[in-house]
Amino acid sequence: MFFQEPELQYEVTVEEPDPHFAKLLQQAIGGQEGEMRVALQYMFQAWAVPEQHEEYRNLLMETAAEELGHIEMLATAVTKNLRGATKSMSEEVRETADMAESMTAQGPRQFLSAGESAMPVDSNGAPFTGNYIVASGNLAGDLYANVMAEATGRTLATRLWNYTDDPGMKDMLSYLIARDTMHQNQWLEALETLDDPVPVPASFPQEQENQDVNYTFMSTRREEQPDPGHPWTEGEAPDGKGQFSYAAEQPGDGDVAAPDPDPMTNDDPNRTDQ
Amino acid sequence: MFFQEPELQYEVTVEEPDPHFAKLLQQAIGGQEGEMRVALQYMFQAWAVPEQHEEYRNLLMETAAEELGHIEMLATAVTKNLRGATKSMSEEVRETADMAESMTAQGPRQFLSAGESAMPVDSNGAPFTGNYIVASGNLAGDLYANVMAEATGRTLATRLWNYTDDPGMKDMLSYLIARDTMHQNQWLEALETLDDPVPVPASFPQEQENQDVNYTFMSTRREEQPDPGHPWTEGEAPDGKGQFSYAAEQPGDGDVAAPDPDPMTNDDPNRTDQ
Amino acid sequence: MFFQEPELQYEVTVEEPDPHFAKLLQQAIGGQEGEMRVALQYMFQAWAVPEQHEEYRNLLMETAAEELGHIEMLATAVTKNLRGATKSMSEEVRETADMAESMTAQGPRQFLSAGESAMPVDSNGAPFTGNYIVASGNLAGDLYANVMAEATGRTLATRLWNYTDDPGMKDMLSYLIARDTMHQNQWLEALETLDDPVPVPASFPQEQENQDVNYTFMSTRREEQPDPGHPWTEGEAPDGKGQFSYAAEQPGDGDVAAPDPDPMTNDDPNRTDQ
Amino acid sequence: MFFQEPELQYEVTVEEPDPHFAKLLQQAIGGQEGEMRVALQYMFQAWAVPEQHEEYRNLLMETAAEELGHIEMLATAVTKNLRGATKSMSEEVRETADMAESMTAQGPRQFLSAGESAMPVDSNGAPFTGNYIVASGNLAGDLYANVMAEATGRTLATRLWNYTDDPGMKDMLSYLIARDTMHQNQWLEALETLDDPVPVPASFPQEQENQDVNYTFMSTRREEQPDPGHPWTEGEAPDGKGQFSYAAEQPGDGDVAAPDPDPMTNDDPNRTDQ
Amino acid sequence: MFFQEPELQYEVTVEEPDPHFAKLLQQAIGGQEGEMRVALQYMFQAWAVPEQHEEYRNLLMETAAEELGHIEMLATAVTKNLRGATKSMSEEVRETADMAESMTAQGPRQFLSAGESAMPVDSNGAPFTGNYIVASGNLAGDLYANVMAEATGRTLATRLWNYTDDPGMKDMLSYLIARDTMHQNQWLEALETLDDPVPVPASFPQEQENQDVNYTFMSTRREEQPDPGHPWTEGEAPDGKGQFSYAAEQPGDGDVAAPDPDPMTNDDPNRTDQ
Amino acid sequence: MFFQEPELQYEVTVEEPDPHFAKLLQQAIGGQEGEMRVALQYMFQAWAVPEQHEEYRNLLMETAAEELGHIEMLATAVTKNLRGATKSMSEEVRETADMAESMTAQGPRQFLSAGESAMPVDSNGAPFTGNYIVASGNLAGDLYANVMAEATGRTLATRLWNYTDDPGMKDMLSYLIARDTMHQNQWLEALETLDDPVPVPASFPQEQENQDVNYTFMSTRREEQPDPGHPWTEGEAPDGKGQFSYAAEQPGDGDVAAPDPDPMTNDDPNRTDQ
Repeated sequence: MFFQEPELQYEVTVEEPDPHFAKLLQQAIGGQEGEMRVALQYMFQAWAVPEQHEEYRNLLMETAAEELGHIEMLATAVTKNLRGATKSMSEEVRETADMAESMTAQGPRQFLSAGESAMPVDSNGAPFTGNYIVASGNLAGDLYANVMAEATGRTLATRLWNYTDDPGMKDMLSYLIARDTMHQNQWLEALETLDDPVPVPASFPQEQENQDVNYTFMSTRREEQPDPGHPWTEGEAPDGKGQFSYAAEQPGDGDVAAPDPDPMTNDDPNRTDQ
Repeated sequence: MFFQEPELQYEVTVEEPDPHFAKLLQQAIGGQEGEMRVALQYMFQAWAVPEQHEEYRNLLMETAAEELGHIEMLATAVTKNLRGATKSMSEEVRETADMAESMTAQGPRQFLSAGESAMPVDSNGAPFTGNYIVASGNLAGDLYANVMAEATGRTLATRLWNYTDDPGMKDMLSYLIARDTMHQNQWLEALETLDDPVPVPASFPQEQENQDVNYTFMSTRREEQPDPGHPWTEGEAPDGKGQFSYAAEQPGDGDVAAPDPDPMTNDDPNRTDQ
Repeated sequence: MFFQEPELQYEVTVEEPDPHFAKLLQQAIGGQEGEMRVALQYMFQAWAVPEQHEEYRNLLMETAAEELGHIEMLATAVTKNLRGATKSMSEEVRETADMAESMTAQGPRQFLSAGESAMPVDSNGAPFTGNYIVASGNLAGDLYANVMAEATGRTLATRLWNYTDDPGMKDMLSYLIARDTMHQNQWLEALETLDDPVPVPASFPQEQENQDVNYTFMSTRREEQPDPGHPWTEGEAPDGKGQFSYAAEQPGDGDVAAPDPDPMTNDDPNRTDQ
Repeated sequence: MFFQEPELQYEVTVEEPDPHFAKLLQQAIGGQEGEMRVALQYMFQAWAVPEQHEEYRNLLMETAAEELGHIEMLATAVTKNLRGATKSMSEEVRETADMAESMTAQGPRQFLSAGESAMPVDSNGAPFTGNYIVASGNLAGDLYANVMAEATGRTLATRLWNYTDDPGMKDMLSYLIARDTMHQNQWLEALETLDDPVPVPASFPQEQENQDVNYTFMSTRREEQPDPGHPWTEGEAPDGKGQFSYAAEQPGDGDVAAPDPDPMTNDDPNRTDQ
Repeated sequence: MFFQEPELQYEVTVEEPDPHFAKLLQQAIGGQEGEMRVALQYMFQAWAVPEQHEEYRNLLMETAAEELGHIEMLATAVTKNLRGATKSMSEEVRETADMAESMTAQGPRQFLSAGESAMPVDSNGAPFTGNYIVASGNLAGDLYANVMAEATGRTLATRLWNYTDDPGMKDMLSYLIARDTMHQNQWLEALETLDDPVPVPASFPQEQENQDVNYTFMSTRREEQPDPGHPWTEGEAPDGKGQFSYAAEQPGDGDVAAPDPDPMTNDDPNRTDQ
Repeated sequence: MFFQEPELQYEVTVEEPDPHFAKLLQQAIGGQEGEMRVALQYMFQAWAVPEQHEEYRNLLMETAAEELGHIEMLATAVTKNLRGATKSMSEEVRETADMAESMTAQGPRQFLSAGESAMPVDSNGAPFTGNYIVASGNLAGDLYANVMAEATGRTLATRLWNYTDDPGMKDMLSYLIARDTMHQNQWLEALETLDDPVPVPASFPQEQENQDVNYTFMSTRREEQPDPGHPWTEGEAPDGKGQFSYAAEQPGDGDVAAPDPDPMTNDDPNRTDQ
């Protein structure tokens, strides 16, 4: 169950409104690495956690609600960058055609579809999609997905930090970067509380997997190469359950032949040359 | 540069063709956890690796080419399950309407659009999308994405293994599960070769992030809760760069007020009540 | 800023778990008429409301947070229908192939991708998309979008109510239907507080629109028809600003000719027959 | 059944070709508020209207065919803005690289994929999608969807009108804005011909909905607030079937616990910590 | 400019309503090979044809309007299969849960979202998308796209014909198959009126293309193969402008090295191991 | 089964790095006419070819692997255009805000999401989708799809060639244009090896199609027109199986009436006016 208060989780100020930066910020709202993704991802993961693992459900929901607040902060930042910017234009550049042209280089739908406000799209203008959300029903897999989400999310935030010199925006991003640091750490810590989760899923009886190739680095080079002696071709594997080895060749020899389609069912789609 | 041979990386046989299972296998081809995703993800990641890190580029490309072969194996499995199935139907159930009905409960496009063969869609029939691919230009973030992809991919493969009792399909999946074991391990091993990558991205000067909240677990509970003493609220963080702490409250106090849109630019979308 | 508590907004019980119904419920989570849409739509609308219209911002956010709780209720309902169902199957039908077949007639990704839990997809398995969200920056337009969203949402909920006879599910849906009744009414009430909003947007100087056709019903029938005397071809228009009239013909006469593409820029794509 | 004539519904002229404006116009073709949406939406709605309501079927189809003509007008406007623009460039700015750069700030696919013509995409370049179309099979819900579509469509058209000072474009938009005025009015008028449609769907026996919360404004504020005395918290509801009331709290108390997944079916995805 | 009459282009009757077949028919409405695609594709192509090629514009628009009528026929067929089917169910199978289950095996949104009518989706339930539409601004390319669209469309229609034994449906499909025969032929005939269009685009000065590989079949086999003497490795090419030859090897030797990202711009995403 | 070598199929050099051109090149990677489409399309087609047509399977796979190498070449070109460009900027224009602004006019995600490298998106930033792929299970239909893909692909490549004057880029494109020439020719040649494939699918017994309209050009003009005497209204059809004729009218007369929805199943969605 959710609640809200009409205040931001952290202050958002913009000194020099910049419609260019408003467009870039959309990536952090509706993009692959954005806050809509993590807020919803943590919720769907939480709702799949069985009762006996209540502490993980709570951990996920605590953070999901925080991320909702980050969407709100970023949407506020977008609106302030867009609305302030048009106001601060001098009269001479506000000639209709020039202004329209200046906008089209940015995110046109922020003006045309949203009245100078934020949208559920990324910085390219592509819509947010449920395809970004990973919630596998397997806790270890989900936690790795969360580490990844926070790693790419923090990478995005630091790039945005580099692309602005507005003090307000830098301060907001400094806050969001710090939260991503915490979230990376908390998901890694949660992974450490799991008992031997790798290879994920741990519950599969590993003796059922093909024993010839489960710790073998398989080269796909056209020309056979000798073992390069990389850390992933020799020595103990990180899961502690096998020794890396090296194969210069893929097994091969499987028959590629596809059966004929059923003439009655399928009207023989390839019968054109008969 | 790529090459191919007309043989499968590993043998694919189907003893009891099953159109139901053909539909499930589509998830491993064109789905979020599927082989199209990893094959393309590893390629795009490789193409962004600068020359000085050639060993990672090669590692990624070696595996990308292997994954292409997995798509081929799975596509062959789909075709064999579909085409064999219609052939093995007894005459009496091949009445037109009944057969059509039986198929519509499965993946109709496998019959209507593809002539009983595999498609670039998932098990729900939703098309493969570039949105699944993570290639951030940051090696550590990408490697976590790869661990996640192989973790959810292996989870999918083990579920498929549980949903069939065809010996050929179980053998093929046993091979693919083993490869996912290896790939999880190789990406974890590659992460270990990086020098102190967490928090990702490591190159951001961490003193620039907000120091008040970068290792603080922030509760979003409506009712303030005492520190629950979880591993993620106290003790050293996994990155070794901070101590976890606990905050029962979000900072709050940011002003939610959005500026007015510019009347000239925006035609004052909210002026309806004036 | 958002908060949460680990309880549901309203109790969710399932007496006879039913994986079929779990699939139908997905429409109310991730579908065009679903709760993800309204929760996010109300948020994005709220974030665009300027400070002077604070009461509308609050109205939108109050309801947005409630809708988040509805997603949670429905996700819980899906999980209970899925997980209970597999448990209650008798041993004999739990043979692997039969069970797999039974599931593929339902939502395969709920099993393969989500471990018997809810997903951000609709009942066809298509992913949730930001394209469903309407947040125009114009308050009157947004409120009509909200009336529509609650109208189609309540229609969906009543259809779901008709398709189940599980008392727990009927009770949950009875609650959600009631909330949709309230929400339809509150958005209509909010529209009434606006001063003369139709035609939306009210701020456009109506004398600038073409005065010949702004209250004319224009027939597109191939054969010219006499005025049918419908309420929309005569009498005062609902906005009170014009009288309906009837035109048996579209104006026509515009020249369809497209200019030649620029040869230098465009390589004359149609020059193939020269 | 459809017919066509090689003339435009209304004249389209462009005095100062402007590739920037061509990109903006795409929103009115393939965007969420665009003409492809309404043309197809009205068709699909019409095809669901049962025989006894023939006058609504006809109303919808009359307008659907008109909207097809609007797509044609806008596509012509796009082509004229694109093709004229490249021709009117002076020689010196037609240096290859500069010209390419100038275009990339606009809609590159209009040049690369379409030979300087219109496309089924929005102003961000995102493809048109059937997800925009609302056709619920419930006439009242559909009519509200149409009011909304014309309200956001007219808002878009007035914004475009503001962003150009080309007399030809202003005249075309003045025509389209007028038609949106008419269409808003005709859908509102059609709603008035329905007998007591709210809450939609009217056919659901309202005594079956939860009577405790069907006219109650439910606050989600973290801190309980007194009744604010808004029009939506007291007085008669617009549907005339209930009195608004105010609840400072959500009901709450529902159990969030998810059941365990079935080990056999699901391979216990959370068993990693056992 | 478009017109319509309230009659179908060809009669649509259903003797044995069949919700299964209703789902299959969706592929011919909103699918990759469906009528929405061709109707819109021919329109967008027409709108790009310059004035001097008016006969091709007309050819395209004549057929576009016909295809709109095919969508209408198919939508009517869907509705008749859905609505008749629920009515013809005997009382005993109309128990709520059983009926719901029977539907979920079909297209749930046809019931939940559309009130037993047609939708702009394919037979898998995936939404129609502008991505299906090819309108390149190059007439020869577009005509090949149209041949392909009618070839795959006719293939779909014949498969549907095979999957039903309802006389009304077979008659409707027999009509649509015949129209696809005509349309394939008319696009091929139109291609023949072009003067030497291959290789498309004909306007590119062919001496500018790399002369070493423009008529060479390039093998990608891992093991070098001798010239197999296929029709595409020797003899005159179909465009009459070159002789096929065979290369057992790709040219190769290009340097794969990616440059370093700019540290200032990019925050050196790969610096994690330094 | 696939293999790779760390070299490019053909050399890729960039003399004057240009981020604008990097964005345009994305169309050739992840766009509708791009190399991801053809590489995957040829694979899925190949996997559906039955054993007896092995030579077509091989033909398709040979080319699929080549196209993978083209993606790699183009991705390298994108990275070189992006990374070189930021490095070559003079210090004065590298002020943060200006640089950010300069980028936002280009493809922001290439910077924000990918660290100055290539992405699986088109030049508008829309993600690659499986919807682009045509693999119908019918060889003749597939080959026409391939001719079309190479025709629009070559058109795209020639437009890109026109939009750059960088010698390295022109050379790379000259190579790719030449390959598209070959591929168009090889698919046309393969079509010629089929015995009488038109109308596709050839296996459908043509006497089953409606004989009244299968070679008739059907006008949809509002006003009846006399036979225009075009090549597609008279004379022998290209398939040699019929004579073109002309009909000034569509058949018409089909009843548009939709049946009533079932009240029990559907809750009578249109009963609102009763």
